[in-house]
Amino acid sequence: MSIYQFAKSIVLLAGQRIREELSQELIIETKSNPNDLVTNMDKETEAFLVSQINEHYPEHRIIGEEGHGQDVTDTEGYLWVIDPIDGTLNFVHQQQNFAISIGIFHDGKKYAGVIYDVMNDKLYHAEAGHGAYLNDQPLPVLKDTELVTSIISMNPNWLTKERTRDMYAPIVQAARSARSYGSAALDFAYVATGIIDSYITLRLHPWDFSGGMIIAEEVGAVVSNQLGEKLDPLHSSSILVANPALHQELLNDYLSPYRARLNEIHQGQFSRR
Amino acid sequence: MSIYQFAKSIVLLAGQRIREELSQELIIETKSNPNDLVTNMDKETEAFLVSQINEHYPEHRIIGEEGHGQDVTDTEGYLWVIDPIDGTLNFVHQQQNFAISIGIFHDGKKYAGVIYDVMNDKLYHAEAGHGAYLNDQPLPVLKDTELVTSIISMNPNWLTKERTRDMYAPIVQAARSARSYGSAALDFAYVATGIIDSYITLRLHPWDFSGGMIIAEEVGAVVSNQLGEKLDPLHSSSILVANPALHQELLNDYLSPYRARLNEIHQGQFSRR
Repeated sequence: MSIYQFAKSIVLLAGQRIREELSQELIIETKSNPNDLVTNMDKETEAFLVSQINEHYPEHRIIGEEGHGQDVTDTEGYLWVIDPIDGTLNFVHQQQNFAISIGIFHDGKKYAGVIYDVMNDKLYHAEAGHGAYLNDQPLPVLKDTELVTSIISMNPNWLTKERTRDMYAPIVQAARSARSYGSAALDFAYVATGIIDSYITLRLHPWDFSGGMIIAEEVGAVVSNQLGEKLDPLHSSSILVANPALHQELLNDYLSPYRARLNEIHQGQFSRR
Repeated sequence: MSIYQFAKSIVLLAGQRIREELSQELIIETKSNPNDLVTNMDKETEAFLVSQINEHYPEHRIIGEEGHGQDVTDTEGYLWVIDPIDGTLNFVHQQQNFAISIGIFHDGKKYAGVIYDVMNDKLYHAEAGHGAYLNDQPLPVLKDTELVTSIISMNPNWLTKERTRDMYAPIVQAARSARSYGSAALDFAYVATGIIDSYITLRLHPWDFSGGMIIAEEVGAVVSNQLGEKLDPLHSSSILVANPALHQELLNDYLSPYRARLNEIHQGQFSRR
């Protein structure tokens, strides 16, 4: 089994565990604190994935949302970047619309990405250079769009903050429409499948974007920070994902006037955690 | 068969037709103009529903998004308020996340609501006074929430408009998080099933809200305009849907300071079409 096949298999197993535990938990203690539930299941899922990887590939290194790999400072060898439950609030509140996300790098280069929409049993996956898939279906390369005919994804909260409102409001006004789904990993998957044309957010951690970046780039999406720079799996960043024409339009016409501010934001706030 | 059972049966049939046509259209002419596709399918679906209703209940009256019942000015007898495809842009762009919505009134009183999430095969339905269902599962009565622990649904676009920004931004800032899904009927269904706690929008037509209002009220949601007034199936309106505690919090603490503006908006813009 290749590392790519292995990654898919453990993500499917982890998803099955979540579904089973969720149905049990929901039956047994509907009155328990949902925050405890998510904390436990986040930790358990990360521990399960990490133990599987350690067992099969003891030399691989792992960065996880729940705390693994805080000492990882370079990208030599195989590096797994893991979010056991992306879209935590959806998980707590909706028990759906969350995902397991894994990005794997080899000597700093993209190797494979896996995003699993657990409750809808949809596995988005890609081996770098070999195309992306939703379950067994190959995903077509994205078509270019203009903002005026595009659906973008942006959390409404960014339009209420002093620091981002004037920067992002013109994008929302010019777009055909805006959506907000509450899971970064799924937003990358939705760009990759054409459900939305762009995903724009001010701050993601490596575990939020690594799997999605590899999958989205495999269908021709451009993934960068909002200064147009490549993402680094060791650092948090602002995010701009879109088909090439839309990425360029957003960067040139809407974000480039705010380069100074974006530079400041990037320098000020982006430690990995 | 009761009128309620009949309504569910024709909505399921209409949904099946949409799924079949959509898969055919997508195979045959991926390059056709998607706007033509939706125009045709909207019209065909409304025509199908209207012909079924006319055949079985010739004395019933019908208001539809696609043009039926423009002459209906009172609510005597049975009145069907129909949206053949709610979430048109999702339909065009995503081929998912749209719904068929029907609200039925008898002598001005709520009789039954049906919302069909066509691609997910989820039928939300309620006969007034007899509880609401998702497929065969009865839906529990909503629990009260506070805004600080609530997920609200609001289109980001309202936060970019002069007339609504200052009114809605504090709600988004105080909420636990905000989402935007792009179908009014499904937003009502999501409140009814606890996926979100409130849906807030400035303008809906009767066909956008009639089915959802009847379903949501059946699980204890409060449905009103943003002045706290009852909705009227003959008139367009602003919308505030939430569990009772959250509805009161939003109305008292966030919207009541804007009563004058909301009054003005209601008087100025709300013809039915």
